[in-house]
Amino acid sequence: MKYPSALLENAVNELATLPGVGRKTALRLALHMLRRDPSYTESFARALVELRRDVKYCRVCHNICDEDMCSICANPNRDHSLVCVVENIKEVMAIENTGQFKGVYHVLGGIISPMDGIGPNDLEIDSLVERVANGEIKEVILALSTTMEGDTTNFFIYRKLSPYSIKISVIARGVSIGDEIEYADEVTLGRSILNRTSFNDSIKL
Amino acid sequence: MKYPSALLENAVNELATLPGVGRKTALRLALHMLRRDPSYTESFARALVELRRDVKYCRVCHNICDEDMCSICANPNRDHSLVCVVENIKEVMAIENTGQFKGVYHVLGGIISPMDGIGPNDLEIDSLVERVANGEIKEVILALSTTMEGDTTNFFIYRKLSPYSIKISVIARGVSIGDEIEYADEVTLGRSILNRTSFNDSIKL
Repeated sequence: MKYPSALLENAVNELATLPGVGRKTALRLALHMLRRDPSYTESFARALVELRRDVKYCRVCHNICDEDMCSICANPNRDHSLVCVVENIKEVMAIENTGQFKGVYHVLGGIISPMDGIGPNDLEIDSLVERVANGEIKEVILALSTTMEGDTTNFFIYRKLSPYSIKISVIARGVSIGDEIEYADEVTLGRSILNRTSFNDSIKL
Repeated sequence: MKYPSALLENAVNELATLPGVGRKTALRLALHMLRRDPSYTESFARALVELRRDVKYCRVCHNICDEDMCSICANPNRDHSLVCVVENIKEVMAIENTGQFKGVYHVLGGIISPMDGIGPNDLEIDSLVERVANGEIKEVILALSTTMEGDTTNFFIYRKLSPYSIKISVIARGVSIGDEIEYADEVTLGRSILNRTSFNDSIKL
């Protein structure tokens, strides 16, 4: 594809580096920029640059935040003895949205994935062990994806934390609420039968 | 959705203004920015700002360009008596890619669409009439979409240009090459029979 303008070609090249954006979509986005006011493009660009330049990570849990410590870790009303280990900030947002969790988090920043060249030292695992070693933590909940990489990371963390006398749990796996039993995959269905809960407990929720 | 950082929320808000990008995709794009080098985000932002700020439009055909006149209008080897009228620069790029057109273009910058509040005065129609009035042009080819809006715009331009003794044509409509006849819609198929071309002409292409 030949572009009538080097500026346009440059913008399309940059936009096409975004995940899920091909060259056709990139051209559509560039033309969208051209139709809008110049101030729109400037505030758009500023927001991205400021995000990348000024973003901070909580020194306790490594969640994204604007201060030295995130609002969850700084909240005295949260249970600081209960730590939920997640892959990324997206999971923190998803769990916070449920309103069901009153503990704090630990964001690994990824999961162990030899295929992508991500080893344990690229993740915030040592800082988790340090938090546990400091004493205050009573339970660590592992909330990673049930993939090969997630299971590997779970097991690695489990091994690292086993010397400490804390409870280590994983989030419940089972048939999703609203899903039909006949369409559930057999691994999920099998595990949901093994890990069945008392009917009395389930109606209390 | 509550965001852990105001900077992140701001970036997500800006990214979600892009066409076809919802808040979930915007968050994914923002996290992509955070994983990359700060210089990446800076060159990304600079490309967009420079495009919007420094882009020029050809003073003859209103195509996007980096100079006062686009490379097509400035090319003495093109046929300046043959003008193809298109909606946008995307169509210029598509037609240029075919390598079949040796004339020049006129970019309207849109089509007449009362639903979107776009009238003839928002488009480069007067400048087209001016180009025709100046004399050099012998034929105008209308290459707009076959929609209600495209047909309206075609008819409006046709009326404006009819006082001048030039040829006004529209691009051929018919069954696409590679398409099966039985799946062609009836309007297209009907028109392709009415506007049939000599077999001798067709095998020369």
